[in-house]
Amino acid sequence: MQRVLVKISYHGGQFLGFQIQNQGRTVQGYFEKILKRMHKHDVRIHPSSRTDRGVHALEQYFHFDTKLNISPSQWQYAMNRALPQDIYVHEVTFIDEDFHCRYDCVGKSYRYAIYQAPHRNPFQAQLKTYLADDLDIEKMNQAAEQFLGTHDFTSFCSQKTEVESKERTIYESRVIRTEEGLDFIISGSGFLYNMVRVIMAFLIEVGRGKRSASDVIQLLEAKDRNLVPHTAPAEGLYLEKIYLSADELVKKFGENITIHQKKSL
Amino acid sequence: MQRVLVKISYHGGQFLGFQIQNQGRTVQGYFEKILKRMHKHDVRIHPSSRTDRGVHALEQYFHFDTKLNISPSQWQYAMNRALPQDIYVHEVTFIDEDFHCRYDCVGKSYRYAIYQAPHRNPFQAQLKTYLADDLDIEKMNQAAEQFLGTHDFTSFCSQKTEVESKERTIYESRVIRTEEGLDFIISGSGFLYNMVRVIMAFLIEVGRGKRSASDVIQLLEAKDRNLVPHTAPAEGLYLEKIYLSADELVKKFGENITIHQKKSL
Repeated sequence: MQRVLVKISYHGGQFLGFQIQNQGRTVQGYFEKILKRMHKHDVRIHPSSRTDRGVHALEQYFHFDTKLNISPSQWQYAMNRALPQDIYVHEVTFIDEDFHCRYDCVGKSYRYAIYQAPHRNPFQAQLKTYLADDLDIEKMNQAAEQFLGTHDFTSFCSQKTEVESKERTIYESRVIRTEEGLDFIISGSGFLYNMVRVIMAFLIEVGRGKRSASDVIQLLEAKDRNLVPHTAPAEGLYLEKIYLSADELVKKFGENITIHQKKSL
Repeated sequence: MQRVLVKISYHGGQFLGFQIQNQGRTVQGYFEKILKRMHKHDVRIHPSSRTDRGVHALEQYFHFDTKLNISPSQWQYAMNRALPQDIYVHEVTFIDEDFHCRYDCVGKSYRYAIYQAPHRNPFQAQLKTYLADDLDIEKMNQAAEQFLGTHDFTSFCSQKTEVESKERTIYESRVIRTEEGLDFIISGSGFLYNMVRVIMAFLIEVGRGKRSASDVIQLLEAKDRNLVPHTAPAEGLYLEKIYLSADELVKKFGENITIHQKKSL
């Protein structure tokens, strides 16, 4: 048996999400259909992260096990040939059988892209979120910084979140000006359901002067989802990077960070 | 009765085309639905051009007649509020009742966008056509120039074309290098069904060294669609500009051009 690691990206606009469903386009659905055809039996893929309907991935990983005698470059070629235009396989590698895409994922980065203009641009549809407002980026950035470190994120996730611990560590959280508007970049040990989109909606409120950076600690401590009722739309959200080892994470964010190893739980 | 001229753009990726159909997303369908709701009766819109499934419009016009007492800026606001993200109304103006978007259209420009890269980019899906090949742009440009002037375009349109005359005048036809690949720009008095996509497919063959610029005149004279069997995909095609008066056309392409006035036919 060979474990195969696949690095992909996809435009989320036309997908119901990563996870396979009974009907409709999903990223998992396309890969499992291709693998079934090649193996003549069902093959399950295991992603590092599941993205929601409309959310993009610049970098995403999954693994699967195979008995087929196919080289990594042949896997890449075969998959790309069969995939639709909005998914692309960047790299295929063979990995040890004790590696698991989900449990070895120690961190992720997301980017949320907003464009600002006097007029909506139909060619940005499903790629960036449109906001006509004048936003105070400096204030947004001050608020973004408040999320750094380890916190319970109950106030900043969907009520549908079903996990034991809502504690996560944020390594990077900042708002930067771009040519077309602004991007919010957030990296952490993991993210709760809708967490990036809820934080983004809150930061937009800060940019509009309706909330302030000093509210963040209080909101985190309250652990009450009703205090932050909005969720920014999916279209501007990109899964940007997956960290598959503590080394990679330390290299990027320094030696003093708290690393959550899911395997050791 | 007031005739209203509407300038729009749209991302064609998720439309079955401009023209309304019994089922599915169409640009005309969205506007007529909005107008019906506002008027409480059916209102027909008349576009300058009809675009096919997947074809984009950077600039497109249509007109309709109304008895409602609504200002141009109110029309624009009401439509943009009700439209999906992939259509946008740029401008609304009142025009004379003897103006007709289709019959007063004396010229159009199209742009066909190709991106070239070692890897397919899923975020260009439905926006540009991907070609990994190394294309000879100079040769493509030489071939593109051969289409200038007035010709019968039977060899360069779909067999489904049903019009009396297949003679059209081309004012501009050139291939330019872009940051990501190349664009083909063509302007003319009018275009037959699939004409730009058939010419584009031919120019790609030229860029690959399989056809040459000197073939063009012969192919045009043959008036046989079977000689140019390919059609480039819709996704790279943009309706870029509509010329609604001879003045505009002369201003852009000079006084010596042949102008086809549909009204006088």
